[in-house]
Amino acid sequence: MRYARVSVGGRAVWGRVGEEDVELLSGSPIEATRRQPHAECGADIIGTVPRATAVWLPPVVPPVFYAVGMNYPRHVAHAGVETPDRPEVGYRANNALTGHLSPIVKPAEVEGRFEAEPELVAVIGRTLRHATYEEARESVFGWTIGNDISARTWQHQDRTFWRSKNSDTFKPMGPWIETDVDALAQTTTLRVNGEVRAAFPTGDMVFDPFDYLVEITKHNTVQAGDVLWMGAESTCRLAPGDTVEVEISGIGVLSNPVHLEGNQR
Amino acid sequence: MRYARVSVGGRAVWGRVGEEDVELLSGSPIEATRRQPHAECGADIIGTVPRATAVWLPPVVPPVFYAVGMNYPRHVAHAGVETPDRPEVGYRANNALTGHLSPIVKPAEVEGRFEAEPELVAVIGRTLRHATYEEARESVFGWTIGNDISARTWQHQDRTFWRSKNSDTFKPMGPWIETDVDALAQTTTLRVNGEVRAAFPTGDMVFDPFDYLVEITKHNTVQAGDVLWMGAESTCRLAPGDTVEVEISGIGVLSNPVHLEGNQR
Repeated sequence: MRYARVSVGGRAVWGRVGEEDVELLSGSPIEATRRQPHAECGADIIGTVPRATAVWLPPVVPPVFYAVGMNYPRHVAHAGVETPDRPEVGYRANNALTGHLSPIVKPAEVEGRFEAEPELVAVIGRTLRHATYEEARESVFGWTIGNDISARTWQHQDRTFWRSKNSDTFKPMGPWIETDVDALAQTTTLRVNGEVRAAFPTGDMVFDPFDYLVEITKHNTVQAGDVLWMGAESTCRLAPGDTVEVEISGIGVLSNPVHLEGNQR
Repeated sequence: MRYARVSVGGRAVWGRVGEEDVELLSGSPIEATRRQPHAECGADIIGTVPRATAVWLPPVVPPVFYAVGMNYPRHVAHAGVETPDRPEVGYRANNALTGHLSPIVKPAEVEGRFEAEPELVAVIGRTLRHATYEEARESVFGWTIGNDISARTWQHQDRTFWRSKNSDTFKPMGPWIETDVDALAQTTTLRVNGEVRAAFPTGDMVFDPFDYLVEITKHNTVQAGDVLWMGAESTCRLAPGDTVEVEISGIGVLSNPVHLEGNQR
């Protein structure tokens, strides 16, 4: 099943994504599934919008936004750093989230490399603490796609990633949450203006999402709606006027145009 | 005016704090004030609970949880680092939040220094982007108190602050939001078991909260309910069995017992 959030009359509404339409739901499927784990979706259908004209929002606004850094062997080798010996996480900020088809806005003062990082995202479905690996597997409600936009000059200048990775629109996420996919058996593909810039096995990770959840929940309570961005193997440069697509087979395609701040494109 | 969130029958309810009682409100005073800036509080009173038995929750669960590091000249000097030449922020995580009088739980495996950092917290009342200093001043709904609990061994071992500063219960915040105070003209006092361990002028900062908001909103949209923790001048060690209090004159006292994980205290 594919669940999304769409904007209807300025309000965020949950939807179930079909071939032609998005069926609008009366409530959150994550909440409904949490209450009734074996129900398909406890929410009622309250309308439909054509998929072709849907206004896609980030599929969830997380209580906590976890992000993994170095987590693909080729990324680690390329960066010339040691392979991490344990799963460690950082954080990103909700102001940076934007949906499928919405513009990534490059700030006017950003110079140097402005890059895309294609990432698998786990969406958590229930409260979790001191989880086993199996409990971590069962806690994932579904999977979506993230594009970890990074302004490298700021990343090197600043003490934190606050503006290099968390400026408004720097975290496109979507288009939807896919609940029925073996996410680690897929292929991640990064395209700019239709041209493939990177492709790698989604599951070729140093630590998988469940390893991370076991480690995180030793100390932190993870809750329904939290997201865990899993890092990328490769990156590529973006410029205003580009359209960047991240595809993960079995999940979908997250597509965003790149605009220059103050311009339409 | 003092606004809090209290637990009533397991539900989080906003309240207005009086001398004897907490008047329970039908909605968020931040939302009400955002819609009607000059109303005292647009929410209805739906009940009261005695202040003496109130169960205090963190006064807000922020969409984005901003935190400032080195921001007091004496802290900078003590750490032997350069004085920051511009305001930079990091992030903390909502799972770590806990309320006034709730225990800070020291994880069983934490060794070395386990410390308190007494901080002023700005609570944002409206959406803000490209703010002037004056707009930043007007955007603050009110002020509360934070205790930035830090496990120093983890802080030095880990690549990020994920567990050193964001383990469950490591971010007590409260007891309430004070809307009528000149927060930068106050005194911050840190006490352990009633004994003063630190006291400093709250406003003796390198950059004040409005400087930070001007800088943040060059790139990020700040929204109602976001919080900005302002750093501390001094710190002190904590041990299980202690009670730690952070007082900011004109705002209140945030008090929390320290327990060892797995023990009642």
